[in-house]
Amino acid sequence: MTGTLYVIGVGPGDPEQLTLKAVRILKTVKCVCVPKGREEGSSMALNIVKKVVDLDGKEIIEAHFPMRKTKTPAHACELDTKWNETVETVLGILNKGTDMAFITIGDPTIYSTFFYLYDRLLELNPLLPVEIVPGISSITASAARAKISLGLADEKIAVLPATYVHNIGMVLEHFDTVVLMKVHKVFDKILAELDAAGLAGKAFFISRAGMHDEEVVRNISSLKGKELNYFSMVIIKK
Amino acid sequence: MTGTLYVIGVGPGDPEQLTLKAVRILKTVKCVCVPKGREEGSSMALNIVKKVVDLDGKEIIEAHFPMRKTKTPAHACELDTKWNETVETVLGILNKGTDMAFITIGDPTIYSTFFYLYDRLLELNPLLPVEIVPGISSITASAARAKISLGLADEKIAVLPATYVHNIGMVLEHFDTVVLMKVHKVFDKILAELDAAGLAGKAFFISRAGMHDEEVVRNISSLKGKELNYFSMVIIKK
Repeated sequence: MTGTLYVIGVGPGDPEQLTLKAVRILKTVKCVCVPKGREEGSSMALNIVKKVVDLDGKEIIEAHFPMRKTKTPAHACELDTKWNETVETVLGILNKGTDMAFITIGDPTIYSTFFYLYDRLLELNPLLPVEIVPGISSITASAARAKISLGLADEKIAVLPATYVHNIGMVLEHFDTVVLMKVHKVFDKILAELDAAGLAGKAFFISRAGMHDEEVVRNISSLKGKELNYFSMVIIKK
Repeated sequence: MTGTLYVIGVGPGDPEQLTLKAVRILKTVKCVCVPKGREEGSSMALNIVKKVVDLDGKEIIEAHFPMRKTKTPAHACELDTKWNETVETVLGILNKGTDMAFITIGDPTIYSTFFYLYDRLLELNPLLPVEIVPGISSITASAARAKISLGLADEKIAVLPATYVHNIGMVLEHFDTVVLMKVHKVFDKILAELDAAGLAGKAFFISRAGMHDEEVVRNISSLKGKELNYFSMVIIKK
Protein backbone atom coordinates (compact mmCIF):
# COMPACT_ATOMS: atom_id res chain seq x y z
CA MET A 1 0.00 0.00 0.00
CA THR A 2 1.35 3.40 -1.03
CA GLY A 3 1.02 6.18 1.56
CA THR A 4 -1.15 9.21 0.86
CA LEU A 5 0.39 12.58 0.06
CA TYR A 6 -1.67 15.28 1.79
CA VAL A 7 -1.01 18.70 0.30
CA ILE A 8 -1.99 21.15 2.99
CA GLY A 9 -2.56 24.89 2.67
CA VAL A 10 -1.64 26.46 6.01
CA GLY A 11 -2.99 29.94 5.24
CA PRO A 12 -1.10 33.22 4.85
CA GLY A 13 0.43 33.52 8.32
CA ASP A 14 -1.98 33.54 11.27
CA PRO A 15 -1.88 29.99 12.77
CA GLU A 16 -5.57 30.38 13.72
CA GLN A 17 -6.35 30.37 10.00
CA LEU A 18 -5.49 26.68 9.77
CA THR A 19 -8.59 24.59 9.12
CA LEU A 20 -9.78 21.83 11.44
CA LYS A 21 -8.97 19.35 8.68
CA ALA A 22 -5.41 20.60 8.22
CA VAL A 23 -4.79 20.33 11.96
CA ARG A 24 -6.27 16.82 12.17
CA ILE A 25 -4.11 15.52 9.32
CA LEU A 26 -0.95 17.27 10.55
CA LYS A 27 -1.42 15.67 13.98
CA THR A 28 -1.76 12.21 12.38
CA VAL A 29 1.01 12.05 9.77
CA LYS A 30 4.51 10.93 10.75
CA CYS A 31 6.28 12.88 8.02
CA VAL A 32 6.06 16.55 6.97
CA CYS A 33 7.66 17.89 3.79
CA VAL A 34 8.36 21.58 3.18
CA PRO A 35 10.18 23.19 0.25
CA LYS A 36 13.65 24.34 1.33
CA GLY A 37 14.08 28.01 2.26
CA ARG A 38 14.83 29.48 -1.15
CA GLU A 39 11.66 31.52 -0.98
CA GLU A 40 10.48 33.31 2.12
CA GLY A 41 7.42 31.08 2.32
CA SER A 42 9.14 27.83 3.17
CA SER A 43 10.27 28.30 6.76
CA MET A 44 7.12 30.34 7.30
CA ALA A 45 4.87 27.36 6.55
CA LEU A 46 6.70 25.28 9.14
CA ASN A 47 6.55 28.10 11.71
CA ILE A 48 2.79 28.43 11.24
CA VAL A 49 2.25 24.71 11.79
CA LYS A 50 4.59 24.58 14.83
CA LYS A 51 2.39 27.03 16.71
CA VAL A 52 -0.59 24.67 16.56
CA VAL A 53 0.71 21.13 16.10
CA ASP A 54 3.47 19.41 18.14
CA LEU A 55 6.00 18.25 15.54
CA ASP A 56 8.20 16.36 18.02
CA GLY A 57 8.88 12.85 16.77
CA LYS A 58 7.77 13.61 13.22
CA GLU A 59 10.21 13.38 10.32
CA ILE A 60 10.64 16.84 8.74
CA ILE A 61 11.92 16.84 5.17
CA GLU A 62 13.18 20.13 3.76
CA ALA A 63 13.19 19.48 0.03
CA HIS A 64 14.89 21.34 -2.81
CA PHE A 65 12.58 22.63 -5.52
CA PRO A 66 13.42 23.66 -9.09
CA MET A 67 14.20 27.32 -9.69
CA ARG A 68 13.12 28.99 -12.87
CA LYS A 69 16.15 31.24 -13.02
CA THR A 70 19.54 29.56 -13.10
CA LYS A 71 22.92 31.28 -13.27
CA THR A 72 25.05 28.88 -15.34
CA PRO A 73 24.62 25.46 -17.02
CA ALA A 74 26.56 23.93 -14.09
CA HIS A 75 24.20 25.63 -11.65
CA ALA A 76 21.19 24.34 -13.61
CA CYS A 77 22.63 20.84 -13.55
CA GLU A 78 23.27 20.99 -9.80
CA LEU A 79 19.69 22.13 -9.17
CA ASP A 80 18.33 19.43 -11.42
CA THR A 81 20.20 16.80 -9.43
CA LYS A 82 18.81 18.16 -6.16
CA TRP A 83 15.31 18.26 -7.62
CA ASN A 84 15.60 14.60 -8.66
CA GLU A 85 16.68 13.81 -5.10
CA THR A 86 13.56 15.55 -3.76
CA VAL A 87 11.27 13.52 -6.01
CA GLU A 88 13.04 10.29 -5.04
CA THR A 89 12.90 11.10 -1.32
CA VAL A 90 9.17 11.87 -1.38
CA LEU A 91 8.33 8.82 -3.46
CA GLY A 92 10.58 6.61 -1.32
CA ILE A 93 8.66 7.53 1.84
CA LEU A 94 5.23 7.15 0.24
CA ASN A 95 6.22 3.79 -1.28
CA LYS A 96 6.98 2.49 2.22
CA GLY A 97 3.29 3.10 3.02
CA THR A 98 3.96 6.20 5.13
CA ASP A 99 1.51 9.11 4.79
CA MET A 100 3.13 12.48 4.26
CA ALA A 101 1.94 16.08 4.59
CA PHE A 102 3.36 18.59 2.13
CA ILE A 103 2.76 22.04 3.65
CA THR A 104 2.47 25.25 1.67
CA ILE A 105 1.56 28.78 2.74
CA GLY A 106 -1.80 30.09 1.56
CA ASP A 107 -3.73 27.65 -0.62
CA PRO A 108 -2.11 24.86 -2.68
CA THR A 109 -3.97 25.79 -5.89
CA ILE A 110 -2.88 29.46 -5.82
CA TYR A 111 0.72 29.78 -7.06
CA SER A 112 2.13 26.95 -4.95
CA THR A 113 5.33 25.16 -5.99
CA PHE A 114 3.62 21.88 -5.07
CA PHE A 115 2.31 21.46 -8.61
CA TYR A 116 5.87 21.15 -9.96
CA LEU A 117 6.32 18.16 -7.67
CA TYR A 118 2.87 16.79 -8.52
CA ASP A 119 3.54 16.68 -12.27
CA ARG A 120 6.75 14.75 -11.68
CA LEU A 121 5.18 12.33 -9.17
CA LEU A 122 2.30 11.60 -11.56
CA GLU A 123 4.78 10.75 -14.34
CA LEU A 124 6.38 8.17 -12.06
CA ASN A 125 3.18 6.88 -10.46
CA PRO A 126 -0.09 7.95 -12.12
CA LEU A 127 -2.08 6.25 -9.35
CA LEU A 128 -0.35 7.95 -6.41
CA PRO A 129 -2.94 8.76 -3.70
CA VAL A 130 -2.95 12.56 -3.33
CA GLU A 131 -5.39 14.71 -1.38
CA ILE A 132 -5.28 18.49 -1.63
CA VAL A 133 -6.48 20.24 1.54
CA PRO A 134 -7.45 23.87 0.84
CA GLY A 135 -6.09 26.73 2.95
CA ILE A 136 -6.99 30.39 3.32
CA SER A 137 -5.36 32.16 0.39
CA SER A 138 -3.45 35.41 0.83
CA ILE A 139 -5.87 36.96 -1.67
CA THR A 140 -9.03 36.60 0.40
CA ALA A 141 -7.11 37.21 3.64
CA SER A 142 -5.83 40.52 2.24
CA ALA A 143 -9.27 41.59 0.99
CA ALA A 144 -10.68 40.75 4.44
CA ARG A 145 -8.12 42.99 6.16
CA ALA A 146 -8.82 45.82 3.70
CA LYS A 147 -12.55 45.18 4.30
CA ILE A 148 -13.35 45.07 0.61
CA SER A 149 -15.31 42.63 -1.51
CA LEU A 150 -13.38 41.05 -4.38
CA GLY A 151 -16.62 40.49 -6.27
CA LEU A 152 -20.37 40.95 -5.79
CA ALA A 153 -23.27 39.82 -8.02
CA ASP A 154 -22.06 39.92 -11.65
CA GLU A 155 -18.64 41.42 -11.02
CA LYS A 156 -15.50 39.99 -12.59
CA ILE A 157 -12.17 39.38 -10.87
CA ALA A 158 -8.69 39.17 -12.41
CA VAL A 159 -5.63 37.83 -10.57
CA LEU A 160 -2.31 38.77 -12.19
CA PRO A 161 1.35 38.59 -11.24
CA ALA A 162 2.67 42.15 -10.97
CA THR A 163 4.75 41.70 -14.13
CA TYR A 164 1.56 42.32 -16.15
CA VAL A 165 0.98 45.76 -14.71
CA HIS A 166 1.54 47.41 -18.12
CA ASN A 167 -1.79 45.94 -19.21
CA ILE A 168 -3.64 47.14 -16.16
CA GLY A 169 -5.75 49.72 -18.01
CA MET A 170 -6.95 47.13 -20.53
CA VAL A 171 -7.69 44.58 -17.81
CA LEU A 172 -9.71 47.09 -15.81
CA GLU A 173 -11.84 47.84 -18.84
CA HIS A 174 -13.14 44.28 -18.63
CA PHE A 175 -12.81 43.48 -14.91
CA ASP A 176 -14.22 45.06 -11.75
CA THR A 177 -11.40 43.97 -9.44
CA VAL A 178 -7.74 43.33 -10.22
CA VAL A 179 -5.47 41.58 -7.75
CA LEU A 180 -1.75 42.14 -8.41
CA MET A 181 0.43 39.47 -6.80
CA LYS A 182 4.14 39.65 -5.92
CA VAL A 183 4.37 43.43 -6.07
CA HIS A 184 7.31 43.95 -3.70
CA LYS A 185 10.09 44.24 -6.31
CA VAL A 186 8.18 46.31 -8.87
CA PHE A 187 6.00 48.50 -6.69
CA ASP A 188 7.26 51.87 -7.99
CA LYS A 189 6.58 50.76 -11.55
CA ILE A 190 3.07 49.65 -10.54
CA LEU A 191 2.46 52.99 -8.87
CA ALA A 192 3.55 54.84 -12.02
CA GLU A 193 1.25 52.71 -14.20
CA LEU A 194 -1.70 53.18 -11.84
CA ASP A 195 -1.07 56.93 -11.63
CA ALA A 196 -0.93 57.16 -15.43
CA ALA A 197 -4.23 55.27 -15.68
CA GLY A 198 -5.83 57.43 -12.97
CA LEU A 199 -6.30 54.37 -10.77
CA ALA A 200 -3.91 54.90 -7.83
CA GLY A 201 -6.81 56.24 -5.76
CA LYS A 202 -8.73 53.01 -6.29
CA ALA A 203 -5.95 50.74 -5.06
CA PHE A 204 -5.22 49.09 -1.72
CA PHE A 205 -1.80 47.82 -0.65
CA ILE A 206 -1.81 44.89 1.79
CA SER A 207 1.24 43.21 3.25
CA ARG A 208 1.38 40.16 5.58
CA ALA A 209 -2.38 40.05 6.07
CA GLY A 210 -3.44 38.96 9.52
CA MET A 211 0.06 38.99 11.06
CA HIS A 212 1.41 41.23 13.83
CA ASP A 213 3.33 43.38 11.33
CA GLU A 214 0.59 43.56 8.69
CA GLU A 215 0.16 46.75 6.67
CA VAL A 216 -3.03 47.94 4.96
CA VAL A 217 -2.37 51.14 3.04
CA ARG A 218 -5.09 53.15 1.32
CA ASN A 219 -2.87 55.99 0.05
CA ILE A 220 -0.46 53.83 -1.92
CA SER A 221 1.56 56.83 -3.18
CA SER A 222 3.02 57.03 0.34
CA LEU A 223 4.89 53.77 -0.34
CA LYS A 224 6.96 55.16 -3.21
CA GLY A 225 10.63 54.21 -2.96
CA LYS A 226 10.14 52.11 0.17
CA GLU A 227 11.41 48.59 0.67
CA LEU A 228 8.40 46.29 0.77
CA ASN A 229 7.76 42.89 2.25
CA TYR A 230 7.81 39.78 0.05
CA PHE A 231 4.20 39.00 1.08
CA SER A 232 2.62 42.10 -0.45
CA MET A 233 -0.20 42.60 -2.93
CA VAL A 234 -2.20 45.41 -4.51
CA ILE A 235 -5.96 45.17 -5.04
CA ILE A 236 -7.58 47.63 -7.44
CA LYS A 237 -11.35 48.10 -7.35
CA LYS A 238 -13.09 50.06 -10.06
CA MET B 1 -19.38 50.20 23.78
CA THR B 2 -20.65 48.90 20.45
CA GLY B 3 -20.37 45.13 19.91
CA THR B 4 -18.14 43.77 17.16
CA LEU B 5 -19.63 42.29 13.99
CA TYR B 6 -17.59 39.22 13.02
CA VAL B 7 -18.16 38.24 9.40
CA ILE B 8 -17.23 34.60 9.19
CA GLY B 9 -16.61 32.51 6.10
CA VAL B 10 -17.59 28.93 6.96
CA GLY B 11 -16.20 27.32 3.79
CA PRO B 12 -18.05 25.60 0.95
CA GLY B 13 -19.65 22.73 2.85
CA ASP B 14 -17.32 20.41 4.74
CA PRO B 15 -17.48 21.45 8.44
CA GLU B 16 -13.81 20.43 8.82
CA GLN B 17 -12.93 23.32 6.51
CA LEU B 18 -13.84 25.81 9.22
CA THR B 19 -10.75 27.59 10.52
CA LEU B 20 -9.66 27.50 14.16
CA LYS B 21 -10.41 31.21 14.35
CA ALA B 22 -13.95 30.82 13.00
CA VAL B 23 -14.67 28.09 15.55
CA ARG B 24 -13.24 30.12 18.45
CA ILE B 25 -15.34 33.17 17.62
CA LEU B 26 -18.52 31.16 16.94
CA LYS B 27 -18.15 29.50 20.36
CA THR B 28 -17.81 32.90 22.06
CA VAL B 29 -20.50 35.07 20.48
CA LYS B 30 -24.04 35.07 21.89
CA CYS B 31 -25.73 35.96 18.61
CA VAL B 32 -25.42 34.48 15.11
CA CYS B 33 -26.94 36.14 12.02
CA VAL B 34 -27.58 34.31 8.75
CA PRO B 35 -29.31 35.60 5.60
CA LYS B 36 -32.81 34.08 5.30
CA GLY B 37 -33.20 31.06 3.04
CA ARG B 38 -33.83 32.79 -0.28
CA GLU B 39 -30.64 31.34 -1.66
CA GLU B 40 -29.52 27.79 -1.10
CA GLY B 41 -26.50 29.00 0.83
CA SER B 42 -28.28 30.40 3.85
CA SER B 43 -29.50 27.34 5.70
CA MET B 44 -26.33 25.59 4.54
CA ALA B 45 -24.09 28.03 6.43
CA LEU B 46 -26.01 27.34 9.63
CA ASN B 47 -25.90 23.57 9.05
CA ILE B 48 -22.12 23.67 8.59
CA VAL B 49 -21.65 25.57 11.85
CA LYS B 50 -24.07 23.31 13.79
CA LYS B 51 -21.89 20.29 13.10
CA VAL B 52 -18.93 21.84 14.92
CA VAL B 53 -20.27 24.44 17.38
CA ASP B 54 -23.08 23.97 19.91
CA LEU B 55 -25.57 26.75 19.12
CA ASP B 56 -27.86 26.03 22.11
CA GLY B 57 -28.52 29.21 24.05
CA LYS B 58 -27.32 31.48 21.25
CA GLU B 59 -29.68 33.91 19.57
CA ILE B 60 -30.05 32.99 15.88
CA ILE B 61 -31.24 35.78 13.59
CA GLU B 62 -32.41 34.84 10.13
CA ALA B 63 -32.34 38.14 8.30
CA HIS B 64 -33.95 39.21 5.03
CA PHE B 65 -31.55 40.47 2.39
CA PRO B 66 -32.29 42.61 -0.68
CA MET B 67 -32.98 40.78 -3.92
CA ARG B 68 -31.79 42.19 -7.18
CA LYS B 69 -34.80 40.94 -9.12
CA THR B 70 -38.20 42.09 -7.93
CA LYS B 71 -41.57 41.19 -9.47
CA THR B 72 -43.65 44.34 -8.95
CA PRO B 73 -43.19 47.78 -7.33
CA ALA B 74 -45.26 46.51 -4.36
CA HIS B 75 -42.94 43.51 -4.07
CA ALA B 76 -39.89 45.79 -4.24
CA CYS B 77 -41.37 47.96 -1.50
CA GLU B 78 -42.13 44.96 0.71
CA LEU B 79 -38.54 43.71 0.32
CA ASP B 80 -37.16 47.16 1.04
CA THR B 81 -39.13 47.28 4.30
CA LYS B 82 -37.81 43.87 5.32
CA TRP B 83 -34.28 44.91 4.41
CA ASN B 84 -34.57 47.99 6.60
CA GLU B 85 -35.77 45.74 9.42
CA THR B 86 -32.66 43.57 8.97
CA VAL B 87 -30.33 46.56 9.20
CA GLU B 88 -32.16 47.86 12.29
CA THR B 89 -32.12 44.46 13.99
CA VAL B 90 -28.38 43.97 13.43
CA LEU B 91 -27.51 47.49 14.53
CA GLY B 92 -29.85 47.22 17.55
CA ILE B 93 -28.00 44.18 18.84
CA LEU B 94 -24.52 45.61 18.21
CA ASN B 95 -25.51 48.92 19.86
CA LYS B 96 -26.38 47.01 23.06
CA GLY B 97 -22.70 45.97 23.16
CA THR B 98 -23.39 42.39 22.06
CA ASP B 99 -20.89 40.80 19.64
CA MET B 100 -22.50 39.12 16.63
CA ALA B 101 -21.26 36.59 14.06
CA PHE B 102 -22.59 36.95 10.53
CA ILE B 103 -21.98 33.60 8.82
CA THR B 104 -21.61 33.13 5.09
CA ILE B 105 -20.68 30.07 3.02
CA GLY B 106 -17.28 30.12 1.34
CA ASP B 107 -15.33 33.31 1.93
CA PRO B 108 -16.92 36.70 2.78
CA THR B 109 -14.98 38.59 0.09
CA ILE B 110 -16.04 36.25 -2.76
CA TYR B 111 -19.60 37.06 -3.89
CA SER B 112 -21.09 37.21 -0.39
CA THR B 113 -24.29 39.18 0.28
CA PHE B 114 -22.62 40.49 3.45
CA PHE B 115 -21.24 43.49 1.59
CA TYR B 116 -24.78 44.77 0.90
CA LEU B 117 -25.31 44.89 4.66
CA TYR B 118 -21.86 46.36 5.28
CA ASP B 119 -22.43 49.37 2.99
CA ARG B 120 -25.67 50.15 4.80
CA LEU B 121 -24.19 49.69 8.28
CA LEU B 122 -21.26 51.98 7.44
CA GLU B 123 -23.68 54.70 6.30
CA LEU B 124 -25.37 54.58 9.70
CA ASN B 125 -22.21 54.10 11.78
CA PRO B 126 -18.89 54.67 9.98
CA LEU B 127 -16.98 53.55 13.08
CA LEU B 128 -18.78 50.21 13.56
CA PRO B 129 -16.25 47.57 14.69
CA VAL B 130 -16.22 44.90 11.97
CA GLU B 131 -13.80 42.01 11.57
CA ILE B 132 -13.85 39.83 8.47
CA VAL B 133 -12.72 36.25 9.12
CA PRO B 134 -11.69 34.50 5.88
CA GLY B 135 -13.08 31.09 4.94
CA ILE B 136 -12.13 28.49 2.34
CA SER B 137 -13.67 29.69 -0.92
CA SER B 138 -15.55 27.33 -3.22
CA ILE B 139 -13.05 28.30 -5.94
CA THR B 140 -9.95 26.86 -4.28
CA ALA B 141 -11.94 23.97 -2.77
CA SER B 142 -13.14 23.00 -6.27
CA ALA B 143 -9.66 23.26 -7.80
CA ALA B 144 -8.35 21.09 -4.95
CA ARG B 145 -10.92 18.37 -5.69
CA ALA B 146 -10.15 18.50 -9.42
CA LYS B 147 -6.44 18.40 -8.44
CA ILE B 148 -5.55 21.33 -10.65
CA SER B 149 -3.56 24.48 -10.03
CA LEU B 150 -5.43 27.74 -10.64
CA GLY B 151 -2.15 29.52 -11.33
CA LEU B 152 1.58 28.82 -11.28
CA ALA B 153 4.52 31.21 -11.70
CA ASP B 154 3.42 34.01 -14.09
CA GLU B 155 -0.01 32.62 -14.96
CA LYS B 156 -3.13 34.79 -14.91
CA ILE B 157 -6.50 33.85 -13.43
CA ALA B 158 -9.95 35.23 -14.30
CA VAL B 159 -13.08 34.68 -12.20
CA LEU B 160 -16.34 35.39 -14.02
CA PRO B 161 -20.01 34.80 -13.37
CA ALA B 162 -21.28 32.36 -16.02
CA THR B 163 -23.30 35.13 -17.71
CA TYR B 164 -20.06 36.28 -19.37
CA VAL B 165 -19.47 32.99 -21.15
CA HIS B 166 -19.91 34.65 -24.57
CA ASN B 167 -16.57 36.38 -24.01
CA ILE B 168 -14.79 33.22 -22.99
CA GLY B 169 -12.60 33.04 -26.12
CA MET B 170 -11.37 36.60 -25.64
CA VAL B 171 -10.74 36.07 -21.93
CA LEU B 172 -8.74 32.90 -22.60
CA GLU B 173 -6.53 34.77 -25.03
CA HIS B 174 -5.28 36.83 -22.09
CA PHE B 175 -5.71 34.44 -19.15
CA ASP B 176 -4.37 30.96 -18.36
CA THR B 177 -7.24 29.89 -16.14
CA VAL B 178 -10.90 30.94 -16.21
CA VAL B 179 -13.25 30.12 -13.35
CA LEU B 180 -16.94 30.33 -14.29
CA MET B 181 -19.19 30.78 -11.25
CA LYS B 182 -22.92 30.03 -10.93
CA VAL B 183 -23.11 27.78 -13.98
CA HIS B 184 -26.09 25.63 -12.96
CA LYS B 185 -28.80 27.51 -14.88
CA VAL B 186 -26.81 28.19 -18.05
CA PHE B 187 -24.66 25.10 -18.37
CA ASP B 188 -25.84 24.02 -21.85
CA LYS B 189 -25.08 27.49 -23.19
CA ILE B 190 -21.63 27.36 -21.61
CA LEU B 191 -21.02 23.95 -23.16
CA ALA B 192 -21.99 25.25 -26.60
CA GLU B 193 -19.66 28.27 -26.23
CA LEU B 194 -16.78 26.09 -25.04
CA ASP B 195 -17.36 23.61 -27.87
CA ALA B 196 -17.39 26.42 -30.42
CA ALA B 197 -14.12 27.76 -29.01
CA GLY B 198 -12.58 24.26 -28.97
CA LEU B 199 -12.20 24.48 -25.19
CA ALA B 200 -14.65 21.87 -23.82
CA GLY B 201 -11.79 19.38 -23.51
CA LYS B 202 -9.89 21.79 -21.28
CA ALA B 203 -12.73 22.28 -18.80
CA PHE B 204 -13.56 20.74 -15.44
CA PHE B 205 -17.01 20.74 -13.85
CA ILE B 206 -17.09 20.67 -10.04
CA SER B 207 -20.20 20.61 -7.91
CA ARG B 208 -20.44 20.70 -4.07
CA ALA B 209 -16.69 20.34 -3.60
CA GLY B 210 -15.73 18.32 -0.55
CA MET B 211 -19.26 17.14 0.31
CA HIS B 212 -20.65 13.60 0.27
CA ASP B 213 -22.48 14.23 -3.02
CA GLU B 214 -19.68 16.13 -4.76
CA GLU B 215 -19.17 15.72 -8.50
CA VAL B 216 -15.93 16.26 -10.41
CA VAL B 217 -16.51 15.77 -14.14
CA ARG B 218 -13.71 15.81 -16.71
CA ASN B 219 -15.85 15.06 -19.77
CA ILE B 220 -18.24 17.97 -19.38
CA SER B 221 -20.20 17.10 -22.56
CA SER B 222 -21.73 14.24 -20.56
CA LEU B 223 -23.62 16.84 -18.48
CA LYS B 224 -25.60 18.23 -21.41
CA GLY B 225 -29.31 18.66 -20.61
CA LYS B 226 -28.90 17.54 -16.99
CA GLU B 227 -30.23 19.36 -13.97
CA LEU B 228 -27.26 20.69 -12.04
CA ASN B 229 -26.69 21.66 -8.44
CA TYR B 230 -26.74 25.32 -7.37
CA PHE B 231 -23.17 24.97 -6.06
CA SER B 232 -21.50 24.20 -9.39
CA MET B 233 -18.63 25.78 -11.25
CA VAL B 234 -16.55 25.23 -14.38
CA ILE B 235 -12.79 25.76 -14.45
CA ILE B 236 -11.07 26.05 -17.83
CA LYS B 237 -7.31 25.66 -18.04
CA LYS B 238 -5.48 26.54 -21.22
